[in-house]
Amino acid sequence: MLVGELGEEALLDRLRRLFSSTAAAISVGIGDDAAVTGPAAGMQVWTTDLLLEGVHFRKDWQAPEQLGHKCLAVNLSDMAAMGAVPRYALLTIACAGDTPVDLITGICEGIASLAAKTGTAVVGGDTTGSPGPLALSVSLAGELEAGEAPVLRSGAHPGDRILVTGRLGGAAGGLRLSQQGSGAGFPQLLTALNTPVARLAEGHAARLAGAAAMTDISDGLATDLRHICAASGTGARIRADAIPVSESLPEAAERHGWELQELVIYGGEDYELLIAAPPDKAGRIAGAIEAAGTLVTDIGQMTAAATGIVMLDPRGAEQPLAQRGFDHFRR
Amino acid sequence: MLVGELGEEALLDRLRRLFSSTAAAISVGIGDDAAVTGPAAGMQVWTTDLLLEGVHFRKDWQAPEQLGHKCLAVNLSDMAAMGAVPRYALLTIACAGDTPVDLITGICEGIASLAAKTGTAVVGGDTTGSPGPLALSVSLAGELEAGEAPVLRSGAHPGDRILVTGRLGGAAGGLRLSQQGSGAGFPQLLTALNTPVARLAEGHAARLAGAAAMTDISDGLATDLRHICAASGTGARIRADAIPVSESLPEAAERHGWELQELVIYGGEDYELLIAAPPDKAGRIAGAIEAAGTLVTDIGQMTAAATGIVMLDPRGAEQPLAQRGFDHFRR
Repeated sequence: MLVGELGEEALLDRLRRLFSSTAAAISVGIGDDAAVTGPAAGMQVWTTDLLLEGVHFRKDWQAPEQLGHKCLAVNLSDMAAMGAVPRYALLTIACAGDTPVDLITGICEGIASLAAKTGTAVVGGDTTGSPGPLALSVSLAGELEAGEAPVLRSGAHPGDRILVTGRLGGAAGGLRLSQQGSGAGFPQLLTALNTPVARLAEGHAARLAGAAAMTDISDGLATDLRHICAASGTGARIRADAIPVSESLPEAAERHGWELQELVIYGGEDYELLIAAPPDKAGRIAGAIEAAGTLVTDIGQMTAAATGIVMLDPRGAEQPLAQRGFDHFRR
Repeated sequence: MLVGELGEEALLDRLRRLFSSTAAAISVGIGDDAAVTGPAAGMQVWTTDLLLEGVHFRKDWQAPEQLGHKCLAVNLSDMAAMGAVPRYALLTIACAGDTPVDLITGICEGIASLAAKTGTAVVGGDTTGSPGPLALSVSLAGELEAGEAPVLRSGAHPGDRILVTGRLGGAAGGLRLSQQGSGAGFPQLLTALNTPVARLAEGHAARLAGAAAMTDISDGLATDLRHICAASGTGARIRADAIPVSESLPEAAERHGWELQELVIYGGEDYELLIAAPPDKAGRIAGAIEAAGTLVTDIGQMTAAATGIVMLDPRGAEQPLAQRGFDHFRR
């Protein structure tokens, strides 16, 4: 059987089982935004993400510094989703010998700039020549305060409010513009795609204020909400008209004939946080996120698993959220 | 300027400078076998290595389990070279959708098996589809006991004895056999190439016994000795006839017309340890390595920098060791 026939989720299940014996003493292993190790006296949080030319980016879609920013930011976002503080990063670069030095140093300048802003030390890495596409991989270790536990995907309960930071769909809009080669006029969407903001302060504040479950929206709202529901054994009901839409996205969607809801619900790479908040703590969590200067919106609530994952349209009709999302191996 | 024109060493120098500000508080940053962070109460050691199809391996040269073994082993070897104990690993796999599932699970079985043997927990990772070659990247974090310091490349002094574990040239011989498609008859050389042993117990014992400087021989004896000399500000004088040669290598070299010394001095990937041992501790260090069941050989001594890096041939003639070694970006 080929990887593309098995699919990404099933492959991950196999690898999870394979490595479970090596990680028997690990607090949180493969399957959350990040892994968690160590005793209560200062747990460590671990994540890694690879950006590959032709899959995750194209060289001519952004400045090298933006690409560097993004390859660290996507890892920082995993850290944010655990409510952890980033500390140490390792960087791997694979590129062809005919790659301009300025491209590589530009990428590294983008990484170094964001690293400095977030208190992340780039402590080492690996470089190698490659006959294939440019590959940028960051591994990141972070910390939790002594005695503190990370916020997992599995902690949600029916009745929890569902909060989301920022606005959605912007990165998906930016991706379509880039693919069409028509970015002019909507710089905000390109910014959303190329220089996503990891919600570190917001994730940390949400954890301290009592968030029950949390993930970052990297695969799209529908898919990432499904991740929380699957891990928590719940359903969810969200209101379509409550979902905060990226500001210039409606205008861009109208001009280009895109279906707006498709981008907002199924578009990935916004790197906002999706939070399940116990009803008695939802106000405090929202307040803590707003105090960090970031919009936060209540878009619905967690339900019993039997409800499934559904969206209420503006007329009050329920529609199930489709199980879609990007599979890296099926093309 | 292109990366291939600048060269790997010069590129690394630029990246080191770029990231130095982010890692100002780091004990050991980019440029040793691994990075070191944290207070004396239990330092952490960090390393990452990428294996790329067509650059570091070919799929038909070894079993999937061997490939998995190797991609963890090369990282464990960096840990060994610091005298540290491996703890947590992150694994990144990039492959095409038409990759057989058995290849990926076989690789992961090889990783899991070696991880279990070495007390390493594979806590997470990333998988992605790729239009390019199969890429396997491991990031590894290890630990030092509270109050203990790692063994760096920079600690050698003139007069230190130069010790090497195991035997050299086997992996380079195995590589030539694989390239020629003529592996039969010399299984030991293929084993040296495909399932290298990270000298974890030996590195740990050497550190406790007082090793002054240490590195693993991944780039070849000449290049890795040069790394220690450059970091320590010394020269070195080694004896050609003292260097332990991989057991079946002379026979293979004779049969295939290879220059034996070329493989032993400049061949890479043996993953043995190269140690600078203060004269009064050399015996104790050698004894500790032998107690781990591993051959250890005194091949010469560190000298003043003015001597350069030289080898005495069996007739007592001195020849400088050429500055060679693999540059990943120049082809």
